[in-house]
Order: sequence, then C-alpha cells, then structure tokens
Amino acid sequence: MGKIKIGIVGYGNLGRGVHKALSQNPDIECMGVFTRRSPETVELIHHDIKAYSMEEILSFKGKIDVLILCGGSASDLPVMAPSLACDFNIVDSFDNHSQIPKHFENVDINARLNKTVAIISAGWDPGLFSLNRLIGESVLPNGTTNTFWGTGVSQGHSDAIRRLDGVKSAIQYTVPVEETVKLVRSGSEKNFSPRERHLRRCYVVLKEGVDGEKVKHAIVTMPAYFSDYDTEVNFISQEEFNENHQKMPHGGFVIRHGRTGENEENNQLLEFSLKLDSNPEFTSSILLAFARAAYRISALGDFGAKTIFDIPLSYLSPKKHEDLLKNLL
Amino acid sequence: MGKIKIGIVGYGNLGRGVHKALSQNPDIECMGVFTRRSPETVELIHHDIKAYSMEEILSFKGKIDVLILCGGSASDLPVMAPSLACDFNIVDSFDNHSQIPKHFENVDINARLNKTVAIISAGWDPGLFSLNRLIGESVLPNGTTNTFWGTGVSQGHSDAIRRLDGVKSAIQYTVPVEETVKLVRSGSEKNFSPRERHLRRCYVVLKEGVDGEKVKHAIVTMPAYFSDYDTEVNFISQEEFNENHQKMPHGGFVIRHGRTGENEENNQLLEFSLKLDSNPEFTSSILLAFARAAYRISALGDFGAKTIFDIPLSYLSPKKHEDLLKNLL
Repeated sequence: MGKIKIGIVGYGNLGRGVHKALSQNPDIECMGVFTRRSPETVELIHHDIKAYSMEEILSFKGKIDVLILCGGSASDLPVMAPSLACDFNIVDSFDNHSQIPKHFENVDINARLNKTVAIISAGWDPGLFSLNRLIGESVLPNGTTNTFWGTGVSQGHSDAIRRLDGVKSAIQYTVPVEETVKLVRSGSEKNFSPRERHLRRCYVVLKEGVDGEKVKHAIVTMPAYFSDYDTEVNFISQEEFNENHQKMPHGGFVIRHGRTGENEENNQLLEFSLKLDSNPEFTSSILLAFARAAYRISALGDFGAKTIFDIPLSYLSPKKHEDLLKNLL
Repeated sequence: MGKIKIGIVGYGNLGRGVHKALSQNPDIECMGVFTRRSPETVELIHHDIKAYSMEEILSFKGKIDVLILCGGSASDLPVMAPSLACDFNIVDSFDNHSQIPKHFENVDINARLNKTVAIISAGWDPGLFSLNRLIGESVLPNGTTNTFWGTGVSQGHSDAIRRLDGVKSAIQYTVPVEETVKLVRSGSEKNFSPRERHLRRCYVVLKEGVDGEKVKHAIVTMPAYFSDYDTEVNFISQEEFNENHQKMPHGGFVIRHGRTGENEENNQLLEFSLKLDSNPEFTSSILLAFARAAYRISALGDFGAKTIFDIPLSYLSPKKHEDLLKNLL
C-alpha cells in the first residue's frame, strides 16, 4: 500500500511541528509546504520537502490525500478551511470554541458538495479534552465536569501585555489553582469562579527607565484578560527571559466526578491530563494522526465535516484492526 | 422519540449496577431481567422491572432494542454473547484480554449473519483504558505506554486466598508501586517487572486455631498469583473485615510518555486515570452508555461486532450532535 500523501498549509509553529513529526509516522509522506509568503523565504527545517506558493495548490488536486491546515483560528482557518475543503480532504485545529458550530457548518456544506472529508478542531482542547468531557458525562451522567488549563503559555495574554507601553518582552502562564483542583478531585460540585480556577503568572521585561508599578497596575486591571484573576507580575531581565521563557509548555486536566449506586453513595472519578513541553508540537502530532483518519474516511466515502466525536478512533492508528484488538484492547 | 428498550441478562453485581444506573439515563427503559435461576428467587433492588427465565428471552425478540450481558468472562459470555447476538443487539464487558480476538470473531459472524450489532469489551479495561492506549500511541508514536491498576480488589486473587486451608475470609488489593509510577511519569522507558509495577495487599481472616505463618507462606509463594510480587499479608478479625472490606473499589492509570521535536527534546505526557468507589457500578454505567451506541448503530444498519475503537463516541451521549459541538467540543 502506498503512503498517505499530505500537504502542510502554513509554516508557523504548527506547520513546523507537522514537518518534525513526519519521521515518527512512516506511513505518511509530505508532498510540500504551501505558503502565502514567497516560497523561497520559508526556512524549512529540512530540505526533504519543498515550499510552494498557495497559488499553486490547485495543481496538487488529486496528488494530495489530505491537507493539514496549520493557520490560526482567528482569521486564517475560517476562510481557508471551507475553501480548501472544496478540492481536498482537510484537517484543522480550529480552537475558537464559540465559533465551532458555525465553522463546522461552513466546512460541512462544501465538503459534502465536493465529496471530501474535513476534520475540524483536531487538537487537545478542542480535541482530546472534549472527548474526555463527552465520555465523562456519558458514563457518569450524575456528576460534574471541570477543565483546568496549564501550567502553560497563553499567546493571547502574552500579546496583551506586550502591547502595553514600556514593555519590551512578556510571557503569561496560565496556572491551575491547586487548592481548587484538590477540591474538584475530592468531589466538590461547587461552581468555581475564574479567579478560583486559574491564576495568571506574568514575566515582563521593561524598557529602560520605565516605572514597573505603572505597568503592573495596567496588567492586573486589564479587563477580560486579567482583572477577573489573581495575577502575579514578575519583572525579569531580557537575558533571563531569553534563557527560561522560550518554550511553549502547556497542559491541563479534565476531571469528571460522578456518583453511582442506590443512594449515589459511591464516588467515581475520571481524569484525563496532559503535561506538554511543547504545545504546538503536540497539536501537530494530533493533526497527523487525524490526517490518517481523514484519508480512511474518505476511502469509505463518508464525506462531510467531522470532529473527534464522529470518528471511530481506530482510524488514528496505522495498525491493523486485528492488532489493535490483540495488543491494545 | 420512544425510549431505548434494554434487557438485563444476569443479575449479579453488574446486572444490579445496570438496574441502579437506569434512573440516571432517562432515555433508556428496562423491559426485564433475564436469569438462569428461578425468576422468583431473584431479589430485585426495585420492583419497577420484572425478572424472567432465560428460557423466555426469545419471546422478547423485537421488543428489546439491546440486551446488556452481565455475565462473567470465564464461562458465561463466551457462550451467551455469540448465541444472543443471533436475535438481539447486545453489549458485553468481556474482559479476558487474551481471548478478545476470538470472542470478537465468534460474535461478529453471528451478528453479521443476523443483522445485529454486538459491542464487546465495553468497560474500563478493556474499554476506556484501551482507548487511551490507542490514542496515546497514535498521537505520540515515539514513546512508551504503561498501565497501572489499583488500588483495587482483584476477585481472582481474593478467591485464590479463600481456597487455602484455614482461611475464613480474604480480600486482595492490587496496589500500584508509587515509585515506579513516578518514574514512568517522569519519562522512564524502562521495562518494569510485575514486582516493580504492583504490590499485592491481602487482608485475611483465619479460622480458629490456624497458624498464620503457614497461611502467609502459602500465599506469598503461590505461583502465578503472588510469587512474582511483593505481597503484604495482614490478619484481621471478621468484624474488621465486615466493616472495612465490603466495597469493591478499583481504578488505575494509563500513562503515555512520548517525545517530539527535531531531536526528540520535548517530553509530552498523557495520562488517563480512574478512582472508583465501586468497580462494578462504574462498568455498569459504561455498559448503559454503550447500549445507547448499539441502538444507534443498529438503526444505521452497520451490523457486526464492534469495540470502543470502532464507534464514533458521540453515540454514547443522549445529547444532540449540535449540542455536543456547542457545549462539549
């Protein structure tokens, strides 16, 4: 059997992550990177693949089994996914939760019309975390689900700090509040506030001569981003910033606490957790597994938009069904 | 839409667990309990349903959407599942890992011939744990998976102790070795021995005048069951046994440690864990969710044997697809 032929659309952190993960997925080969930049300006991490202009992508129709869309959810994916789904099977990691139903619908119409498969929101949240929220409430109907994120970098919050006057560099870590996590694990069904769930830890490098107290005040009072949380602001040197804050760790946990029995006397706890050194590389690895699934679903002729809820998860694995039963079930 | 009509086959711990969980699943109704005993001897926990003899079960063909098989994996399910799959959609929690491929095949043939759906091995291991082993290695191909069980009661090991001369009552808890769990979480890829993974903690009530040292020796040297493990034997009174050791707690964790990046420099850790006050009640709750899935798959005409690997997991939920996308994804 030939390899599954993918294309990488966009070559930021996610696209590079997919490129790096290819060597771990020998049943998949990459036909190229597609970019809106001049292809010659793209710095490929290996030269085993080539970069092409997005304008050339249609000439790959029929030569690529699945496109992995590595753009952002704010402006790239809402446009690219429905459009590319007209000519290719696609996978994306669209993560703007409130817009998922609309994104699904936009992609679904085009995928059905053009007989393609489009798997959306294939990451960890949305993605693996969502799956565990679904399983948790399905197998323990009487109970409470809590999701915590972190410790991990929030790009949006880091950007918000960087936009402030006097800030040279900044990074923000979202941190689950341990006390609350403990309460949830022990079965608390309280509806915890944002402040009780997560704290925001910031590392900021100031420009020369800037008043730190002013910047700190601007951060902790910033509505939507920080004012509803306990926020820790640490001023550090550019050297320390460069040395300790260049990675993109993340993670978190989904906890379902349920009760069973005649009088609901038995506590049942289900937890799924991730601890990631590199958030984008993990998402990239997930995208590759879902590209494999998209290829299979397309071969079965089951066209349209799909999510992690809609797919038999054996399709993620390169292994034969009989081996899955024998070795993993 | 009418309710999903189930039947409960067998009324031990699992069957009673299904009965108890019915009130948490209002889209499902139970048409009866089927037993090989005299139905009038079955002590139902509620009288909202009736017990029938297994001999009457065929008269329910067409009136029951899904049978939930609550028998044991050693001798009940290998016979019952293939046979009942000829006339009903079924769900079981067959958990004899090495026999799963054969069980799947036996059930699959009959289910396909008779156009029924048969979901096998729907529990937590096999079941939810298997799913996480599959996801773990699919999204992190370079890495190691470890499964730990416990702290929880092993029926087989408890029985083995009870069969010894001089033992009045006994229970055995399988306990994960914390040191090893820590090493695995920190990325160790060592192939740990059974002894390094789990210890076996036994609580034993002796008959009067029996030499404890002799019993202890018989336990810790018992091949297959105890000789490959560090085994702790605690002698207690019948009162203490009755008071503290009547529950059937269990749990455990599946840990996938993988590496990503150019030089595999990034550690990525995925963990799924369960902490259960009642092992059988949790399995029963899972069986009910999979009965819902069997009903839906049958309505779609996708007949044959299935496992948790083969089913879109949205089918476990009573919620509409649009609500899943909106609230859980």
